[in-house]
Amino acid sequence: MLICRVVGTVVSTIKDDKLVGKKILIVREATTENELVGKPIAAIDTVDAGIGDLVLIAQGSSARQTTFTKDTPTDAVIMAIIDELAVDGKITFKKS
Amino acid sequence: MLICRVVGTVVSTIKDDKLVGKKILIVREATTENELVGKPIAAIDTVDAGIGDLVLIAQGSSARQTTFTKDTPTDAVIMAIIDELAVDGKITFKKS
Amino acid sequence: MLICRVVGTVVSTIKDDKLVGKKILIVREATTENELVGKPIAAIDTVDAGIGDLVLIAQGSSARQTTFTKDTPTDAVIMAIIDELAVDGKITFKKS
Amino acid sequence: MLICRVVGTVVSTIKDDKLVGKKILIVREATTENELVGKPIAAIDTVDAGIGDLVLIAQGSSARQTTFTKDTPTDAVIMAIIDELAVDGKITFKKS
Amino acid sequence: MLICRVVGTVVSTIKDDKLVGKKILIVREATTENELVGKPIAAIDTVDAGIGDLVLIAQGSSARQTTFTKDTPTDAVIMAIIDELAVDGKITFKKS
Repeated sequence: MLICRVVGTVVSTIKDDKLVGKKILIVREATTENELVGKPIAAIDTVDAGIGDLVLIAQGSSARQTTFTKDTPTDAVIMAIIDELAVDGKITFKKS
Repeated sequence: MLICRVVGTVVSTIKDDKLVGKKILIVREATTENELVGKPIAAIDTVDAGIGDLVLIAQGSSARQTTFTKDTPTDAVIMAIIDELAVDGKITFKKS
Repeated sequence: MLICRVVGTVVSTIKDDKLVGKKILIVREATTENELVGKPIAAIDTVDAGIGDLVLIAQGSSARQTTFTKDTPTDAVIMAIIDELAVDGKITFKKS
Repeated sequence: MLICRVVGTVVSTIKDDKLVGKKILIVREATTENELVGKPIAAIDTVDAGIGDLVLIAQGSSARQTTFTKDTPTDAVIMAIIDELAVDGKITFKKS
Repeated sequence: MLICRVVGTVVSTIKDDKLVGKKILIVREATTENELVGKPIAAIDTVDAGIGDLVLIAQGSSARQTTFTKDTPTDAVIMAIIDELAVDGKITFKKS
């Protein structure tokens, strides 16, 4: 999974039926120190994440393995909110 | 999913039977400010998108999860037209 | 799908049983103006493409969605020959 | 599969039900000489790997092929601890 | 599929049950002239390839489509040994 920060939202009216009622957020990959490094990815939120949260996303067919995204035409899902990251025994991120 | 702008069309006569009757568009990845940054990707359109539209595409096996693309040999599908993007609470794109 | 030009052929005697009788071509990603830009990819040909043809390839599990490649250990298939590409209303490629 | 070194841990309370009870580690791709080169990837550990271990990870749908990760929304799994790597007949890594 | 050269071997004792008895080789992507260009990838060998052989690998779920790798947590398989490559009508590689 990728470590990403939630940075924005997508509004779409015309979309596949299976996407109706699903919140789509914009995330960008982040370092373990929570610096943004990646390009924007649109992902379906299944854990009620908010702007600024550090999250995990699963991509590809794995994005369809949550109850909420089953059989949905999406290739990215937010399925965990990160509380804490530690690298080499040092805490590099702690959710405030 | 990737945020992409529709930039062109593909015409193909000799193709897999399952692609017959499907519109194939050329998209390129765009920033949240709608600047083109990515290389061309050919994607099946399922939402009647037009040239210039900002859209979401799903890739890989997820591209086959719309009713229209089921069991089709395609790895990219346009399944949403973007109305609005917001990043850090600021609207960065609004469909005109 | 990726826009690719067919550039070569692969000959292989020792291979998985399911690959026997399948033509494997070498393609490289091309721009919409038919300039080669990508590295070589080996793909199973299902549309009788020839050297120099501009084609579409599907990758990943989608490469196994043609009748010809079902259950085959391949992650790339040529499933369309491109007749014409248009970008921003201008024809950038036309098959001769 | 990718050759990766385990470098850290992820703590998450709010997550998909299927992730409960699964240890998520941070790995980074390494060379065959065990130098870190890749960006952080979060992967589910199925072999009780520890910080510093050189491991193999499988990505995509293959990450769900262990008994432990079946049907789980994850796209990366640690499924082997590397004892030894040899390149061109020379041992480049040996687990101490 | 990718054109790769076999460069090394992986030894692992602690691993997923389904990997037991499977030979894991290290390959690197090569040009059609057999120059190494890619980073190391660990792949399950199903065709008894040897160090120095030029091979094709399939990645993702396609890596599980051989009889030998079915349901295995691997995302890369060697499923063909290359005898000859030709680009633009010129032979660029011939197995000695």
